[in-house]
Amino acid sequence: MSVLITGAAEVVTGDPALGAGPAGVLERGAVVVEGEQVVWVGPQSQAPAADSVIDLGGATLIPGFVDSHSHLVFAGDRSHEFTARMAGEPYDGGGIGVSVSATRAASDDELRALVARRIDEMRRSGTTTVEIKSGYGLSVEDEERSLRIAREFTEETTFLGAHVVPPEAREAGESGRDAYLELVTGPMLQACAPYAKWIDVFCEPNSPHAFTEEDSRRVLEAGRAAGLGMRVHGNQLGHGPGVRLAVELGAASVDHCTYLSDSDIEALAGAAGTTVATLLPGVEFSTRSPYPDARRLLEAGVSIALASDCNPGTCYTSSMPFVIALAVREMGLTVAEALLAATQGSARALRRSDVGRVAVGCRADLAVVDARSHEHLAYRPGMAITRALDLASPVA
Amino acid sequence: MSVLITGAAEVVTGDPALGAGPAGVLERGAVVVEGEQVVWVGPQSQAPAADSVIDLGGATLIPGFVDSHSHLVFAGDRSHEFTARMAGEPYDGGGIGVSVSATRAASDDELRALVARRIDEMRRSGTTTVEIKSGYGLSVEDEERSLRIAREFTEETTFLGAHVVPPEAREAGESGRDAYLELVTGPMLQACAPYAKWIDVFCEPNSPHAFTEEDSRRVLEAGRAAGLGMRVHGNQLGHGPGVRLAVELGAASVDHCTYLSDSDIEALAGAAGTTVATLLPGVEFSTRSPYPDARRLLEAGVSIALASDCNPGTCYTSSMPFVIALAVREMGLTVAEALLAATQGSARALRRSDVGRVAVGCRADLAVVDARSHEHLAYRPGMAITRALDLASPVA
Repeated sequence: MSVLITGAAEVVTGDPALGAGPAGVLERGAVVVEGEQVVWVGPQSQAPAADSVIDLGGATLIPGFVDSHSHLVFAGDRSHEFTARMAGEPYDGGGIGVSVSATRAASDDELRALVARRIDEMRRSGTTTVEIKSGYGLSVEDEERSLRIAREFTEETTFLGAHVVPPEAREAGESGRDAYLELVTGPMLQACAPYAKWIDVFCEPNSPHAFTEEDSRRVLEAGRAAGLGMRVHGNQLGHGPGVRLAVELGAASVDHCTYLSDSDIEALAGAAGTTVATLLPGVEFSTRSPYPDARRLLEAGVSIALASDCNPGTCYTSSMPFVIALAVREMGLTVAEALLAATQGSARALRRSDVGRVAVGCRADLAVVDARSHEHLAYRPGMAITRALDLASPVA
Repeated sequence: MSVLITGAAEVVTGDPALGAGPAGVLERGAVVVEGEQVVWVGPQSQAPAADSVIDLGGATLIPGFVDSHSHLVFAGDRSHEFTARMAGEPYDGGGIGVSVSATRAASDDELRALVARRIDEMRRSGTTTVEIKSGYGLSVEDEERSLRIAREFTEETTFLGAHVVPPEAREAGESGRDAYLELVTGPMLQACAPYAKWIDVFCEPNSPHAFTEEDSRRVLEAGRAAGLGMRVHGNQLGHGPGVRLAVELGAASVDHCTYLSDSDIEALAGAAGTTVATLLPGVEFSTRSPYPDARRLLEAGVSIALASDCNPGTCYTSSMPFVIALAVREMGLTVAEALLAATQGSARALRRSDVGRVAVGCRADLAVVDARSHEHLAYRPGMAITRALDLASPVA
């Protein structure tokens, strides 16, 4: 069964060979899909026949967003913490413990329903690929179950036992901390690895709850030895070793990059194509932190991605159009650059080339912007004008 | 026919006598509506019987947003201008001419369909009262028709012939400008007054396209003589006379207030209850301008409102939740204060007391936030979790 998608004002292909500019914008473009794959992209006037037709009526077709950083498996409500932070209370990662308690107390079915609802919200704003981290279980049993549930929704699952040192281990002081690292790199990793593709660590010497460079290296190396790809939370709360470590180990991505030194940027530029700098401006918005200078990173030759970091503490949004609007307003990117970073950039952060573009051979993971150009993604901030295209019932 | 609305985690009444804090938050509150009016507000446990029941299933009920500043009657697309501005091009109001040409060229039915679509977008994000300005016609015929069409959607219509001096009049120099002011305060006002409740002027000596203090006074006084209430666009692009003039004349609102001097704030505080300072942070977002300090205004005793300014040039969003999120992130308001400013504050800017609260005798213009507290309005920026409550088909 082939489907012709036509009537678009623009198709943003992500391939400069297929259209104008770095984003490969094809005006009055069309796409043919067979099964789950794109089999043809070109001008509407040259489109081949297909078994059925979807007419976009002048809207814009883009690659579905790839959200390469999210924490969807959690229970509980932390809106009061957000309010307190906006009134001036500092953020140091300590609130994670609140989500850990609520997540441990929830049943499998409750967690599953919460994740399903959050994935649905993502699709309704155009996201078609999502990475999901554990990290609110922090016990062997609860981390394993978080990943097992996450795996029901995506292949891109990440073991984040090293999110924070859990409160019960912190209370035991240095020995509790060591014992927790033993657990994360030993039995917890073993239990989680079957459900995980990636390992991640919150490398942040600026937080008493998170992990040092030495801790982080140990976690990442253990994960690598267990066959997992590496990702790092780095340089979020202040300058630190996260970026350097990610580049040294060849991690697929180092995420946040809120505080970067000149030598961090140099290291990232040298690692372009291997280690992506994943920017999460929703976090800067929701924690009132400074935004990293994405334009400077692009100009230095760094591979960048945009993702949501949807989580209950520092950024409870999963709207990639909102993230794009922030990247344009606050980080100096053009809308096309931001869209590329939120699609093929974030696909690269997951080492995927089958998503993030509208090109022959790619997955038919597409999204529609109800507007005549992709610029409306940032021109209409906060508006619900983007949705994942459902090939089965395209109007819904 | 009475309807009981129950099952809310919170009802934000806007009345401190009915619930906690300045926003009057009633946990597990319920509301009874008869026809178009609220007839009872109180705890769920004490709710009276009604002919039908709407169960909100743990969501939050708030007053529908009152968007007291919008420009919905326009045709054409200015997304490229937005992109150019984000790349560094300055804004001086000149782009309005592009919308004027497209609006003049559109048919009545085209304009009506565009307004209907924009109103529908507003309802889908929780807005239930909207003010609509003319200002993209700038000829007697086109201003009159803009207001005639706007009046099909709302009573809150505003004659803004003095949006900018139209290009054809500017080209004729000082005499063209004078002739345009004659037109606006004479034949155009006469033609428009039957369809307008308010008159407004873009008082902005910092723009070559807009109007001086003297021009503005003339426009406002002519409108007042014709029976219209007064509103002012003031202090948007730099310091200026807009606020002073609005207070002196007793205008209902002075909108933007991006650049305020100490004496402006003093004047506004002295006029509290008469002249509202309407803040439009979507404009600061989309023009990369500094945000006014709303907290300072509140502390000085100024009456404030939040509105969208939805328009094709400087802010093409109508999402009041987005505006609230900006007010919290950038302007120092709590979520409750921002919600009050976006409901009863903006109602006051329209001199209305029948909307903007959930209280006995008020209109049953309600909105639902899919979350357990109103804080999610800012805690979940960019998310489409708020919608106007349709009493006829509440699930849609």
